[in-house]
Amino acid sequence: MDIEERLLDVIPRNMAERGRVTIEALLAPLRDLLNRRCFPERPFSDLQLETLFRLLSSMDTDKDPESARVGEREARVASPFVARMASGFNHGIGRSGHVAAPQPKAPGTSLMQQVADQVAVDAVRKLGLSNVRNGVVLPLATGMGIALALGALRRELGVRRVLYPRLDHVSPLRAIALAGLEHVPIPTVLEEDSVQADISELERYASKNESYAVLATTTFFPPRLSDPLKEISRLCSDNEAPLVINNAYGVQSEPIMASIRSAIDAGRVDAIIQSSDKNFLSPVGASIIVTPQPEVTEWIAETYAGRATAAPVVQTLAAMLAIGQEGYSKLREEQKQNREFLEKKMVEIADSVKQRVLSVENAVACAMTLDGLPAKEIGARLYGRRVTGPRVVEKGAFGSCIDDYPHDYLVMNAAIGASRNDVETATTKLYKEVSG
Amino acid sequence: MDIEERLLDVIPRNMAERGRVTIEALLAPLRDLLNRRCFPERPFSDLQLETLFRLLSSMDTDKDPESARVGEREARVASPFVARMASGFNHGIGRSGHVAAPQPKAPGTSLMQQVADQVAVDAVRKLGLSNVRNGVVLPLATGMGIALALGALRRELGVRRVLYPRLDHVSPLRAIALAGLEHVPIPTVLEEDSVQADISELERYASKNESYAVLATTTFFPPRLSDPLKEISRLCSDNEAPLVINNAYGVQSEPIMASIRSAIDAGRVDAIIQSSDKNFLSPVGASIIVTPQPEVTEWIAETYAGRATAAPVVQTLAAMLAIGQEGYSKLREEQKQNREFLEKKMVEIADSVKQRVLSVENAVACAMTLDGLPAKEIGARLYGRRVTGPRVVEKGAFGSCIDDYPHDYLVMNAAIGASRNDVETATTKLYKEVSG
Amino acid sequence: MDIEERLLDVIPRNMAERGRVTIEALLAPLRDLLNRRCFPERPFSDLQLETLFRLLSSMDTDKDPESARVGEREARVASPFVARMASGFNHGIGRSGHVAAPQPKAPGTSLMQQVADQVAVDAVRKLGLSNVRNGVVLPLATGMGIALALGALRRELGVRRVLYPRLDHVSPLRAIALAGLEHVPIPTVLEEDSVQADISELERYASKNESYAVLATTTFFPPRLSDPLKEISRLCSDNEAPLVINNAYGVQSEPIMASIRSAIDAGRVDAIIQSSDKNFLSPVGASIIVTPQPEVTEWIAETYAGRATAAPVVQTLAAMLAIGQEGYSKLREEQKQNREFLEKKMVEIADSVKQRVLSVENAVACAMTLDGLPAKEIGARLYGRRVTGPRVVEKGAFGSCIDDYPHDYLVMNAAIGASRNDVETATTKLYKEVSG
Amino acid sequence: MDIEERLLDVIPRNMAERGRVTIEALLAPLRDLLNRRCFPERPFSDLQLETLFRLLSSMDTDKDPESARVGEREARVASPFVARMASGFNHGIGRSGHVAAPQPKAPGTSLMQQVADQVAVDAVRKLGLSNVRNGVVLPLATGMGIALALGALRRELGVRRVLYPRLDHVSPLRAIALAGLEHVPIPTVLEEDSVQADISELERYASKNESYAVLATTTFFPPRLSDPLKEISRLCSDNEAPLVINNAYGVQSEPIMASIRSAIDAGRVDAIIQSSDKNFLSPVGASIIVTPQPEVTEWIAETYAGRATAAPVVQTLAAMLAIGQEGYSKLREEQKQNREFLEKKMVEIADSVKQRVLSVENAVACAMTLDGLPAKEIGARLYGRRVTGPRVVEKGAFGSCIDDYPHDYLVMNAAIGASRNDVETATTKLYKEVSG
Repeated sequence: MDIEERLLDVIPRNMAERGRVTIEALLAPLRDLLNRRCFPERPFSDLQLETLFRLLSSMDTDKDPESARVGEREARVASPFVARMASGFNHGIGRSGHVAAPQPKAPGTSLMQQVADQVAVDAVRKLGLSNVRNGVVLPLATGMGIALALGALRRELGVRRVLYPRLDHVSPLRAIALAGLEHVPIPTVLEEDSVQADISELERYASKNESYAVLATTTFFPPRLSDPLKEISRLCSDNEAPLVINNAYGVQSEPIMASIRSAIDAGRVDAIIQSSDKNFLSPVGASIIVTPQPEVTEWIAETYAGRATAAPVVQTLAAMLAIGQEGYSKLREEQKQNREFLEKKMVEIADSVKQRVLSVENAVACAMTLDGLPAKEIGARLYGRRVTGPRVVEKGAFGSCIDDYPHDYLVMNAAIGASRNDVETATTKLYKEVSG
Repeated sequence: MDIEERLLDVIPRNMAERGRVTIEALLAPLRDLLNRRCFPERPFSDLQLETLFRLLSSMDTDKDPESARVGEREARVASPFVARMASGFNHGIGRSGHVAAPQPKAPGTSLMQQVADQVAVDAVRKLGLSNVRNGVVLPLATGMGIALALGALRRELGVRRVLYPRLDHVSPLRAIALAGLEHVPIPTVLEEDSVQADISELERYASKNESYAVLATTTFFPPRLSDPLKEISRLCSDNEAPLVINNAYGVQSEPIMASIRSAIDAGRVDAIIQSSDKNFLSPVGASIIVTPQPEVTEWIAETYAGRATAAPVVQTLAAMLAIGQEGYSKLREEQKQNREFLEKKMVEIADSVKQRVLSVENAVACAMTLDGLPAKEIGARLYGRRVTGPRVVEKGAFGSCIDDYPHDYLVMNAAIGASRNDVETATTKLYKEVSG
Repeated sequence: MDIEERLLDVIPRNMAERGRVTIEALLAPLRDLLNRRCFPERPFSDLQLETLFRLLSSMDTDKDPESARVGEREARVASPFVARMASGFNHGIGRSGHVAAPQPKAPGTSLMQQVADQVAVDAVRKLGLSNVRNGVVLPLATGMGIALALGALRRELGVRRVLYPRLDHVSPLRAIALAGLEHVPIPTVLEEDSVQADISELERYASKNESYAVLATTTFFPPRLSDPLKEISRLCSDNEAPLVINNAYGVQSEPIMASIRSAIDAGRVDAIIQSSDKNFLSPVGASIIVTPQPEVTEWIAETYAGRATAAPVVQTLAAMLAIGQEGYSKLREEQKQNREFLEKKMVEIADSVKQRVLSVENAVACAMTLDGLPAKEIGARLYGRRVTGPRVVEKGAFGSCIDDYPHDYLVMNAAIGASRNDVETATTKLYKEVSG
Repeated sequence: MDIEERLLDVIPRNMAERGRVTIEALLAPLRDLLNRRCFPERPFSDLQLETLFRLLSSMDTDKDPESARVGEREARVASPFVARMASGFNHGIGRSGHVAAPQPKAPGTSLMQQVADQVAVDAVRKLGLSNVRNGVVLPLATGMGIALALGALRRELGVRRVLYPRLDHVSPLRAIALAGLEHVPIPTVLEEDSVQADISELERYASKNESYAVLATTTFFPPRLSDPLKEISRLCSDNEAPLVINNAYGVQSEPIMASIRSAIDAGRVDAIIQSSDKNFLSPVGASIIVTPQPEVTEWIAETYAGRATAAPVVQTLAAMLAIGQEGYSKLREEQKQNREFLEKKMVEIADSVKQRVLSVENAVACAMTLDGLPAKEIGARLYGRRVTGPRVVEKGAFGSCIDDYPHDYLVMNAAIGASRNDVETATTKLYKEVSG
């Protein structure tokens, strides 16, 4: 813009120089981001984010006052407010056969997608998975990301069924079904309080079947344990079967990330899917798929049918930049402290009403028994009292990941981004409900 | 807010009354929208849209300063700017097993989704399909909407293959593949300049096969004609086969909408999918599925795996409200005039360089031959000269929907929302390129 | 930003080039503005305005993440929303002794002020006053602008009293009083329907007094005529008295601007003050002072006590850029047509109820008699029926600019920016009230 | 909006109830504000502020789609962006003869102004001046606020000159001049390091003069002390002379506020003027005038000539609400700690380079000698090194408030809103400059 030279003409030279320094401080991280596409050390300010996205979306052809637009889809929008809702990324992302391919009408959006993909991979690498190579930010939440990954494996590797250690969550089952694959449930076993995948059953099925992939899970509610990834990745390697890992909200946990890294080193992992909102505090809607393999990202991108909304991708990029490495370290530290605090409070409550906290390893959640108490009613009352997120499961109900779990129980989470105050208020209200 | 009473205390009574009248004029259409969920007669202003979405998103639990949030996903966002990017709908839409189900943490978003669905159905009914009953706005572009519809038919009706009159577009093929279905291509035939589905072949296949659905198309580029929907819907009715209609950008055209309405009356139609951006000038990313059948919408909503981004849904709702019935009538009128103007200009250009306009019925696009001219190069030069959207197809290339189309040709569109100036500038530049 | 080079690495070269072209189309007018500081030919888009102001306000030191701020006033703001309300110009404008001087803490705001001043002068020159030399946009509405101009003349030229041809408007009287000057009212005379300054009285006073300035007016409501500027400027020249012209909303009118230009050429004019909102459709709050003299602008800027809000200045600059020369020509054309239409409608109404339109030359407003009708009540009812702006004056009341005007009457305006629909609706409602 | 009832129809009853609770939590403080007009206990969120101002500005007639606007000034704006810049308060505030009077075209803005005035008075009362009765937020910075106050006293009480204990700041002098009053400087005396008003001289002048007001000051840089308000207010009471107090940034300091409160109780105070930005972290541009007298506020409001920009008023209201009593207590606490920290660091630096910190009581600023050092150069270098706000005064220069102050010195401030990091960075850089 030659702002500098202009400044020197109209305002005193030292003031102009000062203005140049300030705007440079604003823009330098943007320039660095576009050059290096890294998860930044320091957080971006909202002003920097707005400037970045304004700049990028201003490169798309729908912003060109001289353009003549004679396609059937030209990112025309009904009103300025509607364009603002999309941060100006009106063209969406991708081309009809590849959701992350450069779109000629939208150079700025295309650049944004590439930056988002590379920043996401860099972030996941720096946060623990140093051995993944590439990845993509999909404008679809985790379950649909799994569907796309499975669909890609179906097309490219002839997968026909999915061995899935039982996990009582609907989304992954929908994903398997949408991809037109057969669901082969692997049972779980009870080990003291914990419910865990029956690996011997998995091995048994695996040795007898063909054309299957395995879908393993890192994060869920107690009493379900994380799947033993290292064993499973070895099994997949031995059987030449693809392994997809649902790492929904595992990025926040260093031990979980370490277990995935080990699984990659020890055997075969094809795709790891994580939620952008649960891990990076973006609005719900995107997932980040990373992989240690060279071609899987492309396969997945080519599985999406059509162009897609840019919104979740740009929101995810914004959230990652707004946090940065420094911010993420702090958030992880707080999460660990809040998790400890949650357990301490739940132990106190359980002791006071003759229940107990389940002894299940879990990086985020903590559960206590509600045996003999009106569990469902307690859950409803907490909701009415403005506590969101607790999960009540009655003996034998869907949720325990096993048919005959011996307790009624309630789960609370101390997830990344939650405050100590959240935990304190929720447990105080819980205490009133169970003791009242 | 009891604003009225307060006003009367502090500012003169007639002024206060005047203020009440003004704010009532602002809010009355919002109240009417929430009560009646109709495609409004008059357009909403940007101020009304902002007020509506502010109000709705303020009902979600993440806005509650007193809430204690102990779930693993609580719509926490990295910065105020990131929340603004999502218009405050941070929770996304749906529950893990149903993309449009009410979400307890997000009453406002849930209400927004229901309003969007009902306004969309009302709009499609008022714009021609008076015989559809219900529908849904999906946060997925048209191709993925087709995939979900096919996936739902697979699960609920046992569909295993899709008879698809040839159309040279990648997205629908990806949709069939993602749903894990077999693609049965139905060939096309050449009739003078036009390429059209070979219905006798469709009948032949249909009578010999089972467990299939048919995917028909209304809108594409010349020389491909729309599929004969009435014949196909009768055939589907006779054979008890589901029919999915890809009506990507057909809402803008009254004749196309009339042909779908007749097809519904005459036979069987299961789902009609339209793009929100191509028809309603929203940013790319959503599709609207409508159906004359009572249960298909639910099936489709239950096919999505997980919660989804709210952004494309809320953008679509905003765009529909920003246009209204009055606005849409004007846009359709302009589209028709621009389409005529486009043909007039292309005939002039073709005449002047010894080419001709293809004689193919098409509500939006117009094509002229480029025989003997450097077709691909002309396309590239137009792009460089800031004309977006023209489509150049060389003899025999993918795009003509038949193996041996006898011409090189170029297509331009006069789609809804384009201006006369778009058409004028594009054809002027085209003239320079072909005559230069 | 070296965006170009980065683009070439990651997206196909022709797409990157296209993106560069688009962003250049966005930025070129901004660069041109900063280089040439002219009232632009073509209007700026809202996107261009946002980009411009984002850029400028980002140069101020309060945006510098590395700055250490140890003054008592450092543009700290209570919340991000509060900063957004000021478009980021948190430092305000000026220094304690000069409201438009560069402010070291705010190079960007300082540049903005200079651009605003120069664009405003260029606009006023292009819109008719080609013989003014410099000027300033003040963050004060017209009346306070007059006060500052008079205060400057008091300090620099020893002015002690103001000869003011009677005009029944409170603001200018407050301005004279605030500047600590004596108000010398010059009476008016009735000439058929018109009320006009009694120039012979002005001459009489002028020849007998000293240390006075004259305050003349161009725009007011009928029956008051504009003051005869040429005669007055000659008189001021002859008497070595400063002349201040209150040109509140005269920029919209070519004849008024021509009369001021002639007055400058013919005699002495010291300052011409115009409203930014009435002439340039900015929110209320700024005035534009221009002058053919070299030093008056500086005098006025040095009369303001302290730093000032930047908001009205930046809003005025934005409004001028949003209109541009092209836009202004259209607005003037519409204003003229609406003014004619207003008179036509009022003549019809007056005829139908045995009243008549006052025969008074006025570029903006038109008045009709209400003799024998309940004038005040009609005014109140119009307000209640959502007509704003009509002015009802009863015989002998303040407003006619003469003691014994012989009619009750009602004035309506067709000012710049009003629509034909405004005039049509207002006159229709007026008809109902006077005939009902 | 009857949102509740609608919710109950479409989403499960308990969810709807939850949504109602959330939106009520958002709106309750707004309702309370409009009912009670108090400085709130708890801070408002940005979402609450946006909702409040959207609501208020939506009551103005320019938002009414049915209105017919035939005035010469109707808050028409050049583009939606321009209206957003004014937060929708396009009409400005006041009427031509009263800057805070209700404006019939703008009921919402009028209400906003009244709320701003009452919240400001309540805030100033709660922050120390419990004995003031009423006040006004002016859209003019402190200096112009003083000018208006003095102008009002001139008109209403016949004030002709201002006794002003010497303070080396340009703005108040401009204010006296703009009001057309004679400036009577009262000299200062040196008392060890401190410079203070020579009260005996003030008494001497006061006893000999008539028609004067006194302008006293609470906040300035060392070595100038605050004026002894109690003595002065008694003197004014005894002499029946009005007293105006320039309390530019004194609200942050409890002792200063206590001294004003005592002065009111002990004698006569007519008006106390404070900066909104320096005390309440709003963008520069408004002042808050409060008074223990019943009529002074009205006098001042009637001194402004014309309607005014609403921007500084609404920004001030927003800033006060964004802070609240809780926030202000925290800010004051931090300010005190930072002030102590600043002195500690300056003592260290001074000791290390054989200078010393001036022994002058000051709630905000701290000064150290720079004798024998290149003072001006050090100031320039600090600016270049991104330290803003330090003030360097050389022996005998304007700034010391006395003719022959015996030191060169540098002042830094630890004002409200500054961070410990500001102080730390600034002093570190200072150390480098003075020791380097």
